[in-house]
Amino acid sequence: MRIGVYPGTFDPLTLGHMDIIRRGARLVDRLVIGVATNPSKSPMFTLAERKAQVGREVADLPGVEVVEFDELLMSFAERLGATVIVRGLRGAGDFEYEFQMTGMNRALNDDIEQLFLMADVALQPIASKLVKEIALYDGDIRKFVPPRIADEVVARVVEMRTPRG
Amino acid sequence: MRIGVYPGTFDPLTLGHMDIIRRGARLVDRLVIGVATNPSKSPMFTLAERKAQVGREVADLPGVEVVEFDELLMSFAERLGATVIVRGLRGAGDFEYEFQMTGMNRALNDDIEQLFLMADVALQPIASKLVKEIALYDGDIRKFVPPRIADEVVARVVEMRTPRG
Amino acid sequence: MRIGVYPGTFDPLTLGHMDIIRRGARLVDRLVIGVATNPSKSPMFTLAERKAQVGREVADLPGVEVVEFDELLMSFAERLGATVIVRGLRGAGDFEYEFQMTGMNRALNDDIEQLFLMADVALQPIASKLVKEIALYDGDIRKFVPPRIADEVVARVVEMRTPRG
Amino acid sequence: MRIGVYPGTFDPLTLGHMDIIRRGARLVDRLVIGVATNPSKSPMFTLAERKAQVGREVADLPGVEVVEFDELLMSFAERLGATVIVRGLRGAGDFEYEFQMTGMNRALNDDIEQLFLMADVALQPIASKLVKEIALYDGDIRKFVPPRIADEVVARVVEMRTPRG
Amino acid sequence: MRIGVYPGTFDPLTLGHMDIIRRGARLVDRLVIGVATNPSKSPMFTLAERKAQVGREVADLPGVEVVEFDELLMSFAERLGATVIVRGLRGAGDFEYEFQMTGMNRALNDDIEQLFLMADVALQPIASKLVKEIALYDGDIRKFVPPRIADEVVARVVEMRTPRG
Amino acid sequence: MRIGVYPGTFDPLTLGHMDIIRRGARLVDRLVIGVATNPSKSPMFTLAERKAQVGREVADLPGVEVVEFDELLMSFAERLGATVIVRGLRGAGDFEYEFQMTGMNRALNDDIEQLFLMADVALQPIASKLVKEIALYDGDIRKFVPPRIADEVVARVVEMRTPRG
Repeated sequence: MRIGVYPGTFDPLTLGHMDIIRRGARLVDRLVIGVATNPSKSPMFTLAERKAQVGREVADLPGVEVVEFDELLMSFAERLGATVIVRGLRGAGDFEYEFQMTGMNRALNDDIEQLFLMADVALQPIASKLVKEIALYDGDIRKFVPPRIADEVVARVVEMRTPRG
Repeated sequence: MRIGVYPGTFDPLTLGHMDIIRRGARLVDRLVIGVATNPSKSPMFTLAERKAQVGREVADLPGVEVVEFDELLMSFAERLGATVIVRGLRGAGDFEYEFQMTGMNRALNDDIEQLFLMADVALQPIASKLVKEIALYDGDIRKFVPPRIADEVVARVVEMRTPRG
Repeated sequence: MRIGVYPGTFDPLTLGHMDIIRRGARLVDRLVIGVATNPSKSPMFTLAERKAQVGREVADLPGVEVVEFDELLMSFAERLGATVIVRGLRGAGDFEYEFQMTGMNRALNDDIEQLFLMADVALQPIASKLVKEIALYDGDIRKFVPPRIADEVVARVVEMRTPRG
Repeated sequence: MRIGVYPGTFDPLTLGHMDIIRRGARLVDRLVIGVATNPSKSPMFTLAERKAQVGREVADLPGVEVVEFDELLMSFAERLGATVIVRGLRGAGDFEYEFQMTGMNRALNDDIEQLFLMADVALQPIASKLVKEIALYDGDIRKFVPPRIADEVVARVVEMRTPRG
Repeated sequence: MRIGVYPGTFDPLTLGHMDIIRRGARLVDRLVIGVATNPSKSPMFTLAERKAQVGREVADLPGVEVVEFDELLMSFAERLGATVIVRGLRGAGDFEYEFQMTGMNRALNDDIEQLFLMADVALQPIASKLVKEIALYDGDIRKFVPPRIADEVVARVVEMRTPRG
Repeated sequence: MRIGVYPGTFDPLTLGHMDIIRRGARLVDRLVIGVATNPSKSPMFTLAERKAQVGREVADLPGVEVVEFDELLMSFAERLGATVIVRGLRGAGDFEYEFQMTGMNRALNDDIEQLFLMADVALQPIASKLVKEIALYDGDIRKFVPPRIADEVVARVVEMRTPRG
């Protein structure tokens, strides 16, 4: 059985991520979406929230499951028995960073293959960071994320503005 | 009447920005320089200072005016009745980021055209961030920014070093 | 009156070109599509054929006209009284070539502004050269070029295969 | 059963190709190396020679076979029942061209997933074209291609120099 | 006598840096490794520690010495009487940033030549930042940094985890 | 004594080449400009003409000489006892090709260091190929090449147009 890992922060999950997940799921028997803790990026959603969001959105995709991780990607993949790591590619600039990550990961374990998928061109410009910026300025993010995620991002923005106490 | 918007933080305005402004002004009837609040970048100059600096430097350019904004760029442009957003391009790396921004902005409103102008090659390497780094180390920044801006940056650096109390 | 030039070989005109033409036409009062002779590329269609094809496809766009040229782009633009040259951008690699062309053109005449427009992301991968390759192998090119152009490319491929004599 | 296609001209097969083949073979149950006719590139080796060379070098790899093709890549892949097309990536410039090909192929058939693998960094700079240039100048190509291929390239260069008649 | 400067933060020194140092040392009579203070990056090792680490690792290389600096790179190079600044290149994305730095430095002093060396391909993906991330997750970093540096990074990670007091 | 080689076709020598030559000459004791035969590119000027043109233009630069070569660059450099190969860099796209060449050359002989210099930004867009295109259309090339080269290119274009016999 071929097991693949698709790692990310998913803060929030975008339609670009969904496209890569659907494509990746066709390449392996079981695709584990690894939701990274990533506290240094001070995410908008907690790890538990992000895991729940991703889990809900991929519920209908057979062979896809969601696991959180707070360790080296290669250790996570080894522990799961994965033979493949799936990455999404957007463009040339993006590729450079992936090149570094891939090179160093390969030095750690070259038995796990890292493969790159290209998102649908219409979805390539979508970046989680820009989705949040647009939401913070009350822009419409429904073209970039699944409907329920859009609602959750908007709700979170409202919460962040509400004075506590 | 064609109205264009040229957005930026302008912290500080550089000779590269000035070149794009002059080029952009020839393409539209009215060019609005949008000075973004950008508090997350902790700018060296306040929004009011930046707006005043830009306004002073473009005072002689017919059809150019300066407006501050703290909203989504596309909302700002819509509110002004702009049909064009002007962006400066420096090089390949730069382009990648612009590609993302442009793609997402287009999904928000494709009636406002985003166009790219290339600064004069001699001015392309100039970046506001590096100007500030050079000034912090007492380097000569007069080749990168207009003369009065250079004086203001140097004065601000001195201020930042002076202990308060 | 602002006059713009959009130069190309258009062998054949693609949906990506059509998108740039529509976008460019909004930026100027009159957009001249300059069809380059380009004999060194041994085009599939003659200059007259390409001029006729482009002219037919843009017939409904107000302010757009088609002119053939066999001279330096900047001389052509000067002769037309153009103040703007419109170029389409696809991605980072593309940009590099445009950077060279733009820099050299600017040294020839910096009063004519060269501006870059980004085609719709879904149309960015389309390249005339690949359209022809696909057609030569009997692939379906109707997603890449206007319908009548598709018919003409297919007819030309058939002609090229037919032994003469 | 997952079937993948790895297309190329392989004129000649390099160690970089071999690395991608080994990596690709782990991702699918059956990997078909598609050797393209490519008469327009006037290859150093005939299609039959290239097919034989590749076949010999991959003889020990289970699940890998070699097929020649002279049709659209997507038609070839469809005819084989492939669900995956494997491509090797070298660097940013390379990626741009792949982006175009991938985008247009996807418009032809989005059910066949195109995935990118990165060759071992030490092998990334190897290009068939440069291998031939080095051989033409009597340089040592054994670091770039399998040993028997090296001998065959050298022999072909000698043949090309020998006057016929 | 030709004096060169190779500037960096070296937090920590990697095998990629070591490769550039060895290559750079062959190009000049005296190579000064400039260790930058860089407090804004909150380095893992203090300036004194980094200077000592680099000094120890290059002790056997003739003509190479280590100097710390907290000033503009060009001022540092001028003060040393250097005529050359050595930089390492990794890939296309990397190049863009270097292009900006080089352009602005040149405007400050064009008598000091800035030259680029390419690290060994196997070492190009190594980045100090990723080395630290791997170490924080208990990954094996000995393929990326010299042995004693590896021990020191691991020791520092343990220290950072130990509650003080 | 440090000997460097700066290879090229120089068809024709441009101001960008001249800038790299001047910069390169400061880095070594003797800089050999290697003029490549390059018959496959069907140059505008013969090898003898190009060698004479370059020789004339660099006559005043101490330590610079011109040698033609028709062999592998690394063999040429070895035969001259060079320790350095100088290359000019223009931008990101350019870099990719250099990356391949450098990687393969290094596999041939890693004792000869390949270093990259960046031409003056104002000269970076200049490409010999575009200079010839501009001249063929009677454009003014004096901003791109030394004055006598400009005259010679124009004269050659006139010759090429004159019917023989």
